[in-house]
Amino acid sequence: MFEDRIKRTEISSIGEFGLIDHLTKSIELKQPSTIYGIGDDAAVINPEGKKVLISSDLLVEGVHFDLTYAPLMHLGYKAAVVNFSDMAAMNVLPTQITVSIGLSNRFSVEAIEELYKGIKLACEHYNVDLVGGDTSSSQSGLILSISVLGLAEEEDVVYRHGAHEGDLLCVSGDLGAAYAGLLVLEREKSEFVANPKMQPQLEGLDYILERQLKPEARVDVVKLLKEIEVKPTAMMDISDGLASEIKHICEQSNVGCSVYENKIPIDQQAWDIARSFNMDPTMLTMNGGEDYELLFTVAQSDFDKIKDVNEIIIIGYMTAASAGQNLITKNNVSVPIKAQGWDSFSKEKDTD
Amino acid sequence: MFEDRIKRTEISSIGEFGLIDHLTKSIELKQPSTIYGIGDDAAVINPEGKKVLISSDLLVEGVHFDLTYAPLMHLGYKAAVVNFSDMAAMNVLPTQITVSIGLSNRFSVEAIEELYKGIKLACEHYNVDLVGGDTSSSQSGLILSISVLGLAEEEDVVYRHGAHEGDLLCVSGDLGAAYAGLLVLEREKSEFVANPKMQPQLEGLDYILERQLKPEARVDVVKLLKEIEVKPTAMMDISDGLASEIKHICEQSNVGCSVYENKIPIDQQAWDIARSFNMDPTMLTMNGGEDYELLFTVAQSDFDKIKDVNEIIIIGYMTAASAGQNLITKNNVSVPIKAQGWDSFSKEKDTD
Repeated sequence: MFEDRIKRTEISSIGEFGLIDHLTKSIELKQPSTIYGIGDDAAVINPEGKKVLISSDLLVEGVHFDLTYAPLMHLGYKAAVVNFSDMAAMNVLPTQITVSIGLSNRFSVEAIEELYKGIKLACEHYNVDLVGGDTSSSQSGLILSISVLGLAEEEDVVYRHGAHEGDLLCVSGDLGAAYAGLLVLEREKSEFVANPKMQPQLEGLDYILERQLKPEARVDVVKLLKEIEVKPTAMMDISDGLASEIKHICEQSNVGCSVYENKIPIDQQAWDIARSFNMDPTMLTMNGGEDYELLFTVAQSDFDKIKDVNEIIIIGYMTAASAGQNLITKNNVSVPIKAQGWDSFSKEKDTD
Repeated sequence: MFEDRIKRTEISSIGEFGLIDHLTKSIELKQPSTIYGIGDDAAVINPEGKKVLISSDLLVEGVHFDLTYAPLMHLGYKAAVVNFSDMAAMNVLPTQITVSIGLSNRFSVEAIEELYKGIKLACEHYNVDLVGGDTSSSQSGLILSISVLGLAEEEDVVYRHGAHEGDLLCVSGDLGAAYAGLLVLEREKSEFVANPKMQPQLEGLDYILERQLKPEARVDVVKLLKEIEVKPTAMMDISDGLASEIKHICEQSNVGCSVYENKIPIDQQAWDIARSFNMDPTMLTMNGGEDYELLFTVAQSDFDKIKDVNEIIIIGYMTAASAGQNLITKNNVSVPIKAQGWDSFSKEKDTD
């Protein structure tokens, strides 16, 4: 009786075109650069004399997300935000996305509406237009593939390869919380599987859960840097873990770095969770991933402009490549940074 | 012993970054509009004062392709071409693509190399740069998600909604062959399943098999139309079947049409296969799909420019919306056009 009140419409009852129409009919275009959105073979964008940036991400159920604890609306929001973060990582604001979704018949029209609600909410929040995509059935689970566009003056684009010796290494906020949230969700899931009557213990953990389930892209920091007239020399977003991203910037810029362990920002909740899992909190920040904070380098001459900005935390500086990539521990010992960032293929490893 | 000679490298042995490096290291950028390709958080494009078009497609194993008979190299080629065709459908040449791939541990590095070979071949053939994407594991099968960009002057872009009463309705080549190829491949597959010693009977069917396995995008027709100074009033590509696409143009342009059955071009091989399957060849052309020819409308005043062009076949004309969408049969009977185009969700239908 109760279950009857939850409506379930089969996607096959309205078909692919019906589903696309249903999901996209209420979409409003707000970006002046969008000339034509959904409804033809392609969307048409007016770059307004700027350069166009494009990035694409693929999210696969069972690899990148677990619907046991990720509500579909949050998942939609996160999938969009992860892409917006790729634009922020280039010092650029996102303007348009296309969303391709593959789904099995496990999903009802109502479920996909929830997913789209999250995507649309993210688009509204970040002032991005949803201009196209594709919808298809899939033989197993949910697939989300998003491409994002951004417009920028060429001189504002920041690559990973521009860091120089002596530059300051900065992050835009605390690290490790998203992975701490994942640890808790995985723990509660396995306890629930063992004892389905158990209530999940999530009180007081809002921050780390939100960091995992509903992250934000630091477009605010991109705007802030513009305001204070600081152009980073190199930048990327922290999706795979600080250690892995530091290595990318060092290798692509042909520099080394010294990172101070006691400067790496971590939230108290994340710290406590690391401890309760018998993990080193610094390991959580270095290898946790999915924080979507920005990692960037700034010329020393810009130090005065950033030193009092709350959102910018200086965690070290760039050195000669020959000096290597090092973490200076709290005990003042220098240890080489080793990346153990997330690799979707590592789940498949039989050996190693 | 013989099997040992086919090298199989597990993707997990080189990891996600290793795989991306391996697949993309030989990529050359040729488009002057590509400022930066693979290797950062986003690619950077110089639209050179033009408008930017974007389209995205998702291809899922078991839904859009069957690796039993689609070689991976052909699949890569086709996946890219299907996207190029979306640009041609807007009267625009493709310039860049991003490719996201999800794959299970069933696939070796060598298998993905084959897939990429096909994608790169298509890019070379069409002068398109591969500028980005994502690679991920998947719990089941192969997922291919491609986004394509194209650059055009705004006045050259052709939408689906611009057809007028009296316009001529044209196609760019023969129809139904891709579906005829699929019919043969499905037949040979089921015969092989029943009797694995059986040799597939594919002699003399090269044309329809190539149309199914390795289609081309009609960018040549886009160039030709430009040369002869004809701008179609409405255009799209034929991916779901002629009937379905005609309905899109009619509905979006608010017109009707009369299509002459005896004018619809079909290749002899496709005709013969339709007959051997006891199918009406016209049904094959109307509902077969995957031909990737262009369907477009041209003002009557352009008739002299197109009447002697081999690549352009006039199959009817547009009428008032109130007259409906009609097929004039060989017996000179007018019947309403009914779309039974391919719908990926129809495979899931339990009832209906």
